[in-house]
Amino acid sequence: MYHHVKKLMYTVKVDTPDVRFGNMLLEQFGGANGELAAAMQYTIQGWSCVDDIARRDLLLDIGTEELSHLEVVGALIRMHLKPLKTKTEAAEVDPLVTIAGGGGLNLLNSRGNPWTADYLKITGELDVDLRSNIAAEARAKIVYERLIDHTQDRGTIDTLQFLMTREITHMKAFAAALESLEKPPFSIGRLAPTPGLVDEFLNDSTGDGDEGEKDIRSPWINSNGLKVVDSPLQGGKGLSLNNVRGIAGREARGKQDSGQRTTTAPQMGELVGVGKP
Amino acid sequence: MYHHVKKLMYTVKVDTPDVRFGNMLLEQFGGANGELAAAMQYTIQGWSCVDDIARRDLLLDIGTEELSHLEVVGALIRMHLKPLKTKTEAAEVDPLVTIAGGGGLNLLNSRGNPWTADYLKITGELDVDLRSNIAAEARAKIVYERLIDHTQDRGTIDTLQFLMTREITHMKAFAAALESLEKPPFSIGRLAPTPGLVDEFLNDSTGDGDEGEKDIRSPWINSNGLKVVDSPLQGGKGLSLNNVRGIAGREARGKQDSGQRTTTAPQMGELVGVGKP
Amino acid sequence: MYHHVKKLMYTVKVDTPDVRFGNMLLEQFGGANGELAAAMQYTIQGWSCVDDIARRDLLLDIGTEELSHLEVVGALIRMHLKPLKTKTEAAEVDPLVTIAGGGGLNLLNSRGNPWTADYLKITGELDVDLRSNIAAEARAKIVYERLIDHTQDRGTIDTLQFLMTREITHMKAFAAALESLEKPPFSIGRLAPTPGLVDEFLNDSTGDGDEGEKDIRSPWINSNGLKVVDSPLQGGKGLSLNNVRGIAGREARGKQDSGQRTTTAPQMGELVGVGKP
Amino acid sequence: MYHHVKKLMYTVKVDTPDVRFGNMLLEQFGGANGELAAAMQYTIQGWSCVDDIARRDLLLDIGTEELSHLEVVGALIRMHLKPLKTKTEAAEVDPLVTIAGGGGLNLLNSRGNPWTADYLKITGELDVDLRSNIAAEARAKIVYERLIDHTQDRGTIDTLQFLMTREITHMKAFAAALESLEKPPFSIGRLAPTPGLVDEFLNDSTGDGDEGEKDIRSPWINSNGLKVVDSPLQGGKGLSLNNVRGIAGREARGKQDSGQRTTTAPQMGELVGVGKP
Amino acid sequence: MYHHVKKLMYTVKVDTPDVRFGNMLLEQFGGANGELAAAMQYTIQGWSCVDDIARRDLLLDIGTEELSHLEVVGALIRMHLKPLKTKTEAAEVDPLVTIAGGGGLNLLNSRGNPWTADYLKITGELDVDLRSNIAAEARAKIVYERLIDHTQDRGTIDTLQFLMTREITHMKAFAAALESLEKPPFSIGRLAPTPGLVDEFLNDSTGDGDEGEKDIRSPWINSNGLKVVDSPLQGGKGLSLNNVRGIAGREARGKQDSGQRTTTAPQMGELVGVGKP
Amino acid sequence: MYHHVKKLMYTVKVDTPDVRFGNMLLEQFGGANGELAAAMQYTIQGWSCVDDIARRDLLLDIGTEELSHLEVVGALIRMHLKPLKTKTEAAEVDPLVTIAGGGGLNLLNSRGNPWTADYLKITGELDVDLRSNIAAEARAKIVYERLIDHTQDRGTIDTLQFLMTREITHMKAFAAALESLEKPPFSIGRLAPTPGLVDEFLNDSTGDGDEGEKDIRSPWINSNGLKVVDSPLQGGKGLSLNNVRGIAGREARGKQDSGQRTTTAPQMGELVGVGKP
Repeated sequence: MYHHVKKLMYTVKVDTPDVRFGNMLLEQFGGANGELAAAMQYTIQGWSCVDDIARRDLLLDIGTEELSHLEVVGALIRMHLKPLKTKTEAAEVDPLVTIAGGGGLNLLNSRGNPWTADYLKITGELDVDLRSNIAAEARAKIVYERLIDHTQDRGTIDTLQFLMTREITHMKAFAAALESLEKPPFSIGRLAPTPGLVDEFLNDSTGDGDEGEKDIRSPWINSNGLKVVDSPLQGGKGLSLNNVRGIAGREARGKQDSGQRTTTAPQMGELVGVGKP
Repeated sequence: MYHHVKKLMYTVKVDTPDVRFGNMLLEQFGGANGELAAAMQYTIQGWSCVDDIARRDLLLDIGTEELSHLEVVGALIRMHLKPLKTKTEAAEVDPLVTIAGGGGLNLLNSRGNPWTADYLKITGELDVDLRSNIAAEARAKIVYERLIDHTQDRGTIDTLQFLMTREITHMKAFAAALESLEKPPFSIGRLAPTPGLVDEFLNDSTGDGDEGEKDIRSPWINSNGLKVVDSPLQGGKGLSLNNVRGIAGREARGKQDSGQRTTTAPQMGELVGVGKP
Repeated sequence: MYHHVKKLMYTVKVDTPDVRFGNMLLEQFGGANGELAAAMQYTIQGWSCVDDIARRDLLLDIGTEELSHLEVVGALIRMHLKPLKTKTEAAEVDPLVTIAGGGGLNLLNSRGNPWTADYLKITGELDVDLRSNIAAEARAKIVYERLIDHTQDRGTIDTLQFLMTREITHMKAFAAALESLEKPPFSIGRLAPTPGLVDEFLNDSTGDGDEGEKDIRSPWINSNGLKVVDSPLQGGKGLSLNNVRGIAGREARGKQDSGQRTTTAPQMGELVGVGKP
Repeated sequence: MYHHVKKLMYTVKVDTPDVRFGNMLLEQFGGANGELAAAMQYTIQGWSCVDDIARRDLLLDIGTEELSHLEVVGALIRMHLKPLKTKTEAAEVDPLVTIAGGGGLNLLNSRGNPWTADYLKITGELDVDLRSNIAAEARAKIVYERLIDHTQDRGTIDTLQFLMTREITHMKAFAAALESLEKPPFSIGRLAPTPGLVDEFLNDSTGDGDEGEKDIRSPWINSNGLKVVDSPLQGGKGLSLNNVRGIAGREARGKQDSGQRTTTAPQMGELVGVGKP
Repeated sequence: MYHHVKKLMYTVKVDTPDVRFGNMLLEQFGGANGELAAAMQYTIQGWSCVDDIARRDLLLDIGTEELSHLEVVGALIRMHLKPLKTKTEAAEVDPLVTIAGGGGLNLLNSRGNPWTADYLKITGELDVDLRSNIAAEARAKIVYERLIDHTQDRGTIDTLQFLMTREITHMKAFAAALESLEKPPFSIGRLAPTPGLVDEFLNDSTGDGDEGEKDIRSPWINSNGLKVVDSPLQGGKGLSLNNVRGIAGREARGKQDSGQRTTTAPQMGELVGVGKP
Repeated sequence: MYHHVKKLMYTVKVDTPDVRFGNMLLEQFGGANGELAAAMQYTIQGWSCVDDIARRDLLLDIGTEELSHLEVVGALIRMHLKPLKTKTEAAEVDPLVTIAGGGGLNLLNSRGNPWTADYLKITGELDVDLRSNIAAEARAKIVYERLIDHTQDRGTIDTLQFLMTREITHMKAFAAALESLEKPPFSIGRLAPTPGLVDEFLNDSTGDGDEGEKDIRSPWINSNGLKVVDSPLQGGKGLSLNNVRGIAGREARGKQDSGQRTTTAPQMGELVGVGKP
């Protein structure tokens, strides 16, 4: 159950409204990496996460804060777009918002595209979803950073700095939730990859380009057990395809399988695929 | 420049065509986490990555392999959908593919939605893009695992096991590329978050639910410097908003700023925002 | 600012999970007339409604309740979809939710289409938005009614009856807010329609059809000042086009122009178009 | 069956072509509340309305007129966009229309988004559809008003005044059709809402905001039988949830059930749900 | 200006309603190659075709007939979907149409995707648009053929045969309009391709596949002046890139430039690019 | 299987970066008729074309070349957009690319719309697909021509001239593949149209317009066996509807049915509908 209080989470002040900047800000209201996308992604993941109520709580904590962020971004945009209502020349900057939206808010990105749930990454597999969320926070952070780079308005910068900081907070929290699952590195879900084949990095782009590009074999490509293999199309030996012989075994899901569950969650043994030979 | 050879990267065999399973497989052909999404995301990131030609090469290596995977998935789907062309009762499983597509391939997901670039996560900031790619590989892996869970056909399982394994290979490679940048943890881009505020985890979802949900304070929430703060709406002290006073400083971008660049890349000092006080 | 409490607004119980019905229920979660659409439409209208803080409050009251409804519908769907996780034959009912979503929630409608902000009707003109909301509540009500028509599960019926009832509550409230503006009937915005022309109903579909359709001149078509005019393409005299000579005058906006405003709202006289001769 | 005559319903004259204004006008050609949306919404509702041939006729009369309006708006846009074909600097205003469309018409809105059937509100329930249409006409009217506010061209203003006036005509006609059904107020479809609960308005947004927002209890909120209830999250008594005990009874559908029907319409007693206890 | 007469262009009779077939038929109502797409593509091309009023008339003749076809397809679908209203088990075939649409028509394709203007191919260049229309008619024809292949209902087959035949009629007419322009073969627009380079067919997919695919050099690939060139990636000499030296000259646009024009069409000499050296 | 070499198919040089032109160029990267659309359309048609391996080879040859073109267009755009990274005022030209994409490439068109598979025309019927491809090449050619019309940069013009020329090459090749099938003109698929009816061109748009439009009966409308019929709504005799009596017979599919096939292709006699009486 939700409750709303009219006070903004961060008080918004705009000294000099800038319609073009208001338009850019829409990216964090109705854009692909914006606050509604974050709120919906984490909240819906949380509602589905019935077999780990601790991390469900985390997802709902952060999902709810993102709703409050959406409101803050909305207030900031509204103040920057105010001239759309009072100056006819401003209208040309964003005809859709002016003519169809009356100069007010709408769930659009900076190019007027409607928000879509295609922006969301929700798989219902907790460790995968946490990785998607870490990446989502990184994206939101860089977008706020770029917005700060494009304004001189002090009140606007303060608000964006607040929002940008919170993305890092959430990134830390999602990382804590993921690491504490104590799943082995590069272990996803319950099926193991095929040994040998999994460590072969295929060199599938070769040659030199006109801007100085090269076929580079960096030292770090030998990390994590990887070794480089040349493509058979270039005379290399290619991947060890013969290693594949059905399923390669099971992997542990870490602490998720022993955590606290809701009363309505299916039991481990009931899940499709778990008992497959 | 691309070249195509007619031999599949992995030879596909289907013993028993299953139209419903062929429909599910479309998820990895024209779906949100499928092979075209992977190919496009990495390749386009690579084409834009002009200031680190080593990691540009990596992105193009993997992006190209994903195109070959798309072809393999396509061949697998085509064999499973073959009855759409020869049995009228099969057509009801997927009328769009049958009637509009003649029983052949199309860039659709398992519910017939057209592929859209909204699936892609491309920011042009290398460390952010690598995190998005790690998450993308995790998602693709779990989708292949679920597909394996829903078929008994041996040739199909082998092909899916091959493809699933390669997702882990790529995840390892993206992780190697990210870690070798030697950027501090939780440092994204070049602007620092506000100290103090960045470590406050807001407890924004409270109370107990009817299915056993609780307001949980897990030990791991104190990792990464975090501490829990209660919401002012619940009588807590809330976030330390007064800490925010404009930009909080700069952060290093790790080895990316000293790496090999293309001849056409902008210089560090030319970039918007870098010299901002 | 938002806060979340884990207790559902209405406690959900499902006696017999029904995957196909769970799929239908998605219509009210991620569908065109579902709870997210309602929550977003009213909340965003409310955030933009700076010149009437009483009706802004109403929009936010209802927008927030719809968020709580979204959570209730989500819980109901999750319980009905539970077999997707435990029975492989159930997966064929909704491959997208099973394979891509792990049997959990996602922002999709009953046919797997992603939620889009194109569903929303937000114009930033209060009396228009209230009419859009009355219609939106009517649509949501009929969808719940049809869902009730297609299930026999008692716990499910109770939950749907609760949600359906609240749509009528909100419809009453939006109607109260609209009527109390005391704007004349058929007066929208501030520009008057051209007299004479506005009362001519054009008979633009004529003749008889094979299923008993007729060209009917019902008594009620003479209501609201209307009179029927035949098309010039059928030998009729057509519309009185010569009546149009520029703008036909101004209309009052009712009590909206004298209500309580936020401190950041533009003044009446500042608005584009208001002083236009 | 349709027939087209080359004469426009309203003769369009443009004194001074204005590419930016032509771009804004696209909102009423291929936009969410534009003429194609109106034509399709009413026409398709009409084709489905087999159990009330009088109101089916009305829907087709108006749907057909909207097609003629689409043609008028198209001619107006074409004249305003003419410089896209003859002046290279004009092309930057709308690259999509210039480069992809050759400076001609396309089904786009003012921000270049393709028209989508997601704009339509069609439920197949006559009284609901009529309410959606009243709201649609109100939205189209305010968009025309705003367009008039942003041009000084006399011929353009006349055309827009004509089109704006007709929206009010149609609004009157849809209202006449709805009222003459003689359905009780706030009665939608055939299932009754739960008494008591239906009259409780939940005060779900509280407190004061920084721009002067308040938690307001307006006198009009007591209209239509409503009374305000405080949220349990704020210590209020909340909604009377115990009132819900299955379906609360049936409601009459007004004159729709006794009107003239096509020969192919299902009979009242055949409909799903009607006989449900 | 449009007029509607209630009589269908072809009288529709359905002996045995088949909900699954009705769902397939949606492909020609709200699908990518359906009747609305045809009507909109030709009509909007016609409205923009101001410099050739003869072919403008043709485009409007056919565009209008397609509207009448849309109505016929709609009636056919409605009759096949009738059980959605009267049998609860039928609803599962198409929950979106049943629950959201009341069992009536909506602008969806056979998988429930909303119609979008992305289906349309409109460039505003007459000879290009005519080629797009010839291809569109071929697609619509094959879709009708496949629908006929999947039904046994006599009345339905007759209606589909009628509609299928008309697509060939329109294909003939578009071909007549294109050929009578007397433009040279493979001449598009006004800029000539680079000689030499234009005749080189690049052999960019080579080798043998596991299903019997081969690198084939068919005799017909030497038609139209073409000759095969091997890729430099395979040791071939590649394309003659040095032939490219700016624009290669002008081409005639055939009879379009000397035809009858509307009074509002730009003159030939005024067009952007025409006088470019 | 695909392989990538870092050398561009055509070396790109930009003398004067032009952000607005870079934005226009996106039309050929992520737009409806751009290089990705071409690559995907031909390649996926090729993968599905199992019953004619010669033309399958052609489709894959051209589809692969289009991927190399996509890379060339991407490099050209990147160079034109470079100022987005270095000049804050440039950012306003394309806020989405700047703020969300970091000034790099993304799969968008010139108005910021995400690429969608709705752009593709794939039916799985070879002769139909070849016609769609001829039209697609014509569209791509005219878009390149218009881009050339809007730039003065020599290096840019050379690159566009190269790409434009290749579209004509491909158009020639698709035409060769279609003609060599030796299917009769206006014969699509295997079902014949109804004789008589197929030759009647309906004059469905009549009268004169205000811009000089007329109801024209051009001599060429009598080509291809056509004759003009007036509409019954205008007193004409209308179409010969009585000619329709079920299926009108079979047509040959030309050489496609006797060509080389993959080992996995269904046999002619197995296909749905072929044996229908």
